Amino acid sequence: MGTSVKSARRYSSLSREARKPGIINLNPIQRGGILPDVARKALDEFGDGYSLCDFCTKGRIDKIRKPPVEDFLSDLASFLGMDVVRLTNRSREAMFVILMALKRSRGGSAIVVDSNAHYSTYLAAEAAGLSVFEVPNSGYPEYKVDLGAYGRVADEVEEETGEPPVAIILTHADSHYGNLNDPRPVAALCRKLGVPFLLNAAYTAGVMPINGGKLGADALISSGHKSWASSGPIGIMALSSELAEEVLVPSSRFPNKELFLLGCPVLGAPLATLMASFAYVVERVERWPDEVRKARWLVAELERIEGVRQLGVRPKEHHLICLETPSFHEVARRHKKRGFFLYHELKARGIVGIEPGLTRRIKLSTYGLSEDELVKVAEAFQDIARSYNLSVS
Amino acid sequence: MGTSVKSARRYSSLSREARKPGIINLNPIQRGGILPDVARKALDEFGDGYSLCDFCTKGRIDKIRKPPVEDFLSDLASFLGMDVVRLTNRSREAMFVILMALKRSRGGSAIVVDSNAHYSTYLAAEAAGLSVFEVPNSGYPEYKVDLGAYGRVADEVEEETGEPPVAIILTHADSHYGNLNDPRPVAALCRKLGVPFLLNAAYTAGVMPINGGKLGADALISSGHKSWASSGPIGIMALSSELAEEVLVPSSRFPNKELFLLGCPVLGAPLATLMASFAYVVERVERWPDEVRKARWLVAELERIEGVRQLGVRPKEHHLICLETPSFHEVARRHKKRGFFLYHELKARGIVGIEPGLTRRIKLSTYGLSEDELVKVAEAFQDIARSYNLSVS
Repeated sequence: MGTSVKSARRYSSLSREARKPGIINLNPIQRGGILPDVARKALDEFGDGYSLCDFCTKGRIDKIRKPPVEDFLSDLASFLGMDVVRLTNRSREAMFVILMALKRSRGGSAIVVDSNAHYSTYLAAEAAGLSVFEVPNSGYPEYKVDLGAYGRVADEVEEETGEPPVAIILTHADSHYGNLNDPRPVAALCRKLGVPFLLNAAYTAGVMPINGGKLGADALISSGHKSWASSGPIGIMALSSELAEEVLVPSSRFPNKELFLLGCPVLGAPLATLMASFAYVVERVERWPDEVRKARWLVAELERIEGVRQLGVRPKEHHLICLETPSFHEVARRHKKRGFFLYHELKARGIVGIEPGLTRRIKLSTYGLSEDELVKVAEAFQDIARSYNLSVS
Repeated sequence: MGTSVKSARRYSSLSREARKPGIINLNPIQRGGILPDVARKALDEFGDGYSLCDFCTKGRIDKIRKPPVEDFLSDLASFLGMDVVRLTNRSREAMFVILMALKRSRGGSAIVVDSNAHYSTYLAAEAAGLSVFEVPNSGYPEYKVDLGAYGRVADEVEEETGEPPVAIILTHADSHYGNLNDPRPVAALCRKLGVPFLLNAAYTAGVMPINGGKLGADALISSGHKSWASSGPIGIMALSSELAEEVLVPSSRFPNKELFLLGCPVLGAPLATLMASFAYVVERVERWPDEVRKARWLVAELERIEGVRQLGVRPKEHHLICLETPSFHEVARRHKKRGFFLYHELKARGIVGIEPGLTRRIKLSTYGLSEDELVKVAEAFQDIARSYNLSVS
């Protein structure tokens, strides 16, 4: 076969910098996915493949009663203010499943999306055979989505394609700038047009309080490994009853299986950790005001550094922070490690999670950091700045 | 929100029967997914969400070099005798991705599938907008797929739809009877017809030696949590270079992202455990003849029980065993626990993994059981039989 046991052993004992004791990880895609101790126990207990299927008697993971998956999904739906929850393997699959189902049931050839949407939203649309009409944002430096333009863009879809949009999507908080949007005006428009409103809450549900029903969402999509302290991969697809009927259609040959989900998602450890972390999540979302305060504090501290400026809406309303750092970029140009200097300087100070190589713009998150950790992060950046002769006010 | 922290705590500390020391688990979907110790270490190290993305610099998980994901995928492709490997969240997603891509590139409206295919193959086809033409099997008691009929069924597709099949699929070993099929005659037909040959190796690759290239497969699909000792969910999509070009098309807007994969599959712990278990898997597939011998031995022991008969091709060539057990079903009819009596009797003897409630037909697997465990299983079934006055020869 050309592969020896000996050569395969190089993959047998990999370790991870970010797991070393005392290391602070600032990666925005990771801060909401760090497991609490109860979830680490669940990870061990349910770590083997298909571990949740021991007592499956109906051929449906969402109907398993031992452990209480069925009850959990019902509680999760209620926590999100929605009617029905199904799990998928990623939040982008939830988006794709909904778009495939709506295209099949309604026809149509386009969707409306905010211009800060995640790349996977564009891929889900393209794979489902739908074109994307974008709602503009204000551009540099705030990149604020123009929520008032949704109506105009929906009209453009109708004019250009002859049909209303198949769906209208808003990214609740985006992955580029961490701008938080108010879904309600978009929801009102969707209700008026009779078009399903899909709220991408991958960066909000699980870290902040959110009631999809009250916000007017027909579907709320989230990510267990991003924002629910689940090992993942696991996506959360929360639906209104009406949309559920349209999306969760049965297979023609296996009516017990949901067609566009391709039957059961196989969720052992990802679901076990999502369940184990649920109480922790229910508790932590109530501390959201404190999380916003921490993000604002760090922004103020980092903006004391020459040339550093927060991008996106000010003041921060979300834990994901995007900074332009032209002064660090200038250092990188002269540094023998080039853009990687910042990564290495931070690592030497016990901090990881800034994308290696980037210095023009950086992204980080303060979610769940302690006050001590926050101070350590601020001091590390300021110390690095001073060591390269950048001024700190 | 209607969900209190207190009520959510009921999901915080779930435990699992099958993980108790000394318990023997016979579940055919689980035996190949039990983690070796090295994988349990990886599970702990990489248990947090997005744990493999620490050093992502190209926005592609398949190109990550630290840990060596890129090298691993290349070694995995070589181990399987294929050119390119991509990971998906389940093997059914790999099937769906290939079918979507082929339908888009080739047109066509139908595929040819063996009649023992997994339900998810039918769902993947239906979701991709393809109808299914079935290659028959011999029916009770062997259910042997008539490999010689593939040509005739492919002709029927051409006659009825006016186009050749989009793909031809063979389930290498099926999930119902554990019948192992020789892919070579089907591969030869596909080459002649110019139709891609997809081999579903969810129950074979990772537990037995398999070289997809030598078998003539254009795509080989497998399941990490089913047969590669990975925590999962994780699917393996191994392709020939030619098919890879057709399947791994870029997104029009994000050319760095593969369209039908919806970009990166999010594979922290599932991939970390797949990598950690690789040497263990490379080693264990060489013991396949011994695994087949164990399956045959247990069949012989269980067939000593009145009314018990192995279904599927005889003698066994695979670890998944299907038995008809009308005598146990007769007991269940009179038992106050009905069909669940067998589950409880086995559990009392330290054995789990037979689907709770079933007694007419049962499925089990001997994969990776020690000789002592095999004997314990045989004796448990025989003991239960005797205790209900069934004869044991």
